[in-house]
Amino acid sequence: MTDTLAVTDGRVLTPEFDVIRADVLIDADAGEILDVAPDLAGDADETLDATDSLVMPGLVNAHGHATMTLLRGYADDKNLEDWLQEDIWPAEAELTPADVGVGTRLAAVELIRSGTTAFADMYFHVGEVVEAVREAGLRARVGHGVVTVGKDEAAAREDFAESVAVAEEYDGAADGRIRTAVMPHAPHTVGTEYFEEFVPTVREAGVPLHFHLNETETYIEEIDAEAGVRPTAYADDLGLLAEDTFVAHGVHLDDTEIATLAERDTSVVHCPASNMKLASGMAPVQDMLDAGVTVALGTDGAASNNDLDLFDELRDAAMVGKLAADDAAAVDAETAVRMATAGGAEALGFDSGRIEAGANADLAVVDLESAHLTPEHDLVSHLAYAARGSDVRHTVCDGEVLMRDREVLVLDEEDVRERAQEHAEVLVARAEE
Amino acid sequence: MTDTLAVTDGRVLTPEFDVIRADVLIDADAGEILDVAPDLAGDADETLDATDSLVMPGLVNAHGHATMTLLRGYADDKNLEDWLQEDIWPAEAELTPADVGVGTRLAAVELIRSGTTAFADMYFHVGEVVEAVREAGLRARVGHGVVTVGKDEAAAREDFAESVAVAEEYDGAADGRIRTAVMPHAPHTVGTEYFEEFVPTVREAGVPLHFHLNETETYIEEIDAEAGVRPTAYADDLGLLAEDTFVAHGVHLDDTEIATLAERDTSVVHCPASNMKLASGMAPVQDMLDAGVTVALGTDGAASNNDLDLFDELRDAAMVGKLAADDAAAVDAETAVRMATAGGAEALGFDSGRIEAGANADLAVVDLESAHLTPEHDLVSHLAYAARGSDVRHTVCDGEVLMRDREVLVLDEEDVRERAQEHAEVLVARAEE
Repeated sequence: MTDTLAVTDGRVLTPEFDVIRADVLIDADAGEILDVAPDLAGDADETLDATDSLVMPGLVNAHGHATMTLLRGYADDKNLEDWLQEDIWPAEAELTPADVGVGTRLAAVELIRSGTTAFADMYFHVGEVVEAVREAGLRARVGHGVVTVGKDEAAAREDFAESVAVAEEYDGAADGRIRTAVMPHAPHTVGTEYFEEFVPTVREAGVPLHFHLNETETYIEEIDAEAGVRPTAYADDLGLLAEDTFVAHGVHLDDTEIATLAERDTSVVHCPASNMKLASGMAPVQDMLDAGVTVALGTDGAASNNDLDLFDELRDAAMVGKLAADDAAAVDAETAVRMATAGGAEALGFDSGRIEAGANADLAVVDLESAHLTPEHDLVSHLAYAARGSDVRHTVCDGEVLMRDREVLVLDEEDVRERAQEHAEVLVARAEE
Repeated sequence: MTDTLAVTDGRVLTPEFDVIRADVLIDADAGEILDVAPDLAGDADETLDATDSLVMPGLVNAHGHATMTLLRGYADDKNLEDWLQEDIWPAEAELTPADVGVGTRLAAVELIRSGTTAFADMYFHVGEVVEAVREAGLRARVGHGVVTVGKDEAAAREDFAESVAVAEEYDGAADGRIRTAVMPHAPHTVGTEYFEEFVPTVREAGVPLHFHLNETETYIEEIDAEAGVRPTAYADDLGLLAEDTFVAHGVHLDDTEIATLAERDTSVVHCPASNMKLASGMAPVQDMLDAGVTVALGTDGAASNNDLDLFDELRDAAMVGKLAADDAAAVDAETAVRMATAGGAEALGFDSGRIEAGANADLAVVDLESAHLTPEHDLVSHLAYAARGSDVRHTVCDGEVLMRDREVLVLDEEDVRERAQEHAEVLVARAEE
């Protein structure tokens, strides 16, 4: 016998972006949406009330480093290179596996609270990430970040090999909610010879690749100086671009690079807040969309954002997308919401991001009963421009209710916060010794 | 005997941007802060608990059109000129005084909920705005917006005369919480002859001026075509720039214009969200600050934002300020928080924006007990980059508690929301007839 859950009496955002009155019936065991139609409550073992609320796909945070919640507010108002070298890398060098577990749990609480049901994570001590994701009930594509610059050959090879091993070990963990990717940090931080050595293995294993691409002009110049080409051509020559590859940032992309990404069907994860905060620049999002590139949204790590509320990214993407295009019609409300849901799901390879029979039962229920979401001329506009993470009242992932009426059910939030504070204090003290 | 209120057991953001453990003792009758020191609870008639919270100055929203909450989400993703002419002005032409009362109350609920205690309002049917502000307990600088283009001479003169009359009638209303300004819409929407006729009267009345300046390139070109100068020089020639003048937007300002604004001590209200959403551009905020211009923050109307949460503007100001300056150190966290508090108070001429004996008792108490504000490396960073309006648990204005533990005490929120929905529907139906 199947356990079923019905999300009742709400309005539902359909894949076509209509808003209809319907219940959503879920197979809680399989984690799958069974039906979207009126009056399904009678068929369900359990119900979740969505009166005066909007049922939307769970948001997808397609690029980040969850543990960096521990460094939220630790160093601000610096450009990427200085911030990494002076503050972030020294602190990360001191991170223990336990810190990663604690930081990822803190991130998970924040994600669940703001309606995000799936995320990508590039970090290290990935076993700890996996354990936290398993406990939190979220869906994630995780991987070990590879950096070879500054390492001797043995250490560099070991790092890349670990990324491959990690991807093979954890793929399918947590009842299939965890998928993996091999995650070389970026073209300029991983030596060409290691890409050449390992990419065939990655392809053989059938695991996606995820890396940073064209985040700053400086990084582009480094590849140009070394290889005499733009980083996208460099990555393409190395076989890094494929349909299951998703790259982060893509701030400075010329038309040829955008065409290459479109041709390879490689997704780009736009991280507008991080790109503004680190003064990296404005990504040509509308140009990418026009060229047919799948664009997803990511918060990046909390230290360059400084939160994991994807409703901020949604709004930022629409706002900065208009500035970048010098056109107020660019990156409209629906486009922004699509990037945060269906776009993210496509980039990460999850059958989520839509409220429809057959899709993963990953959804967020947004409370519409508030002044800042009144009046209701257009609910999609509200999602893009007025809603915030705190408007989410229920979060469901893989058919499991992770948060009900703003109470997180899967983690002890107070305990997670206390441990995060303790670990963050000790970490920073070690880094500053 | 004086009624006193003590805000107890919290941490307090001082005018020097230190965070100290202290109580805040308030003279509730005079609406003034009496003392900031530990252990003041015993002296107070009433207390407001601030355990695990940060007591900060109430935010100041220094440019907006409160009634436009009724048009939130009505028209998006258009540039300023088309949006005004095709959607907003036709709808505003149908607004009744009752609509203004309802829309302003909806705005008031939103402002109170997100910790804003003072705002500027440029609109019409100002008597209705005043009544709503009186009821809501907020502090405001209000005025009647003048537009003379498209009007015959009699109607144009009447419009400007009404702005002056309104400013004289309501100044000091609501126990002094309401102050006024004469508000000609913009240099390009008010004829030179009317500025020449009325500005001496305004100066005689001792009332400030508030208008839009350099919001788009198009508007700058209009003045240049007509007068052969930049709008700031044009405004200066007409005597519009003074210490009590505050102008909105200032998106496209050249160095000469910034120097003029600094010399005249005229404040600029930066509206980053509106400027992004309408693709108006990025204001040179750090340049203005470096030149000594007082910069405040405003949401503009909700139809171009789409909310009145000044924590969004804070974050946007820091984020876009970096992009505009191409420098991640520009508009740092403290600067952004200062603009939203002390900067706004200075622009509007209120003795608020600081938690200190002698200042107006206008404050917001931010709940720090949440995942997205953990860990606590730097609370000012959290205010700028991670907090949102929904983190505010208490709002106090002029010594009165407007919201306690997230319950708005001064307005019936459900009734306000219902009436706003009704009025918005009828308004839009009329506009689209």
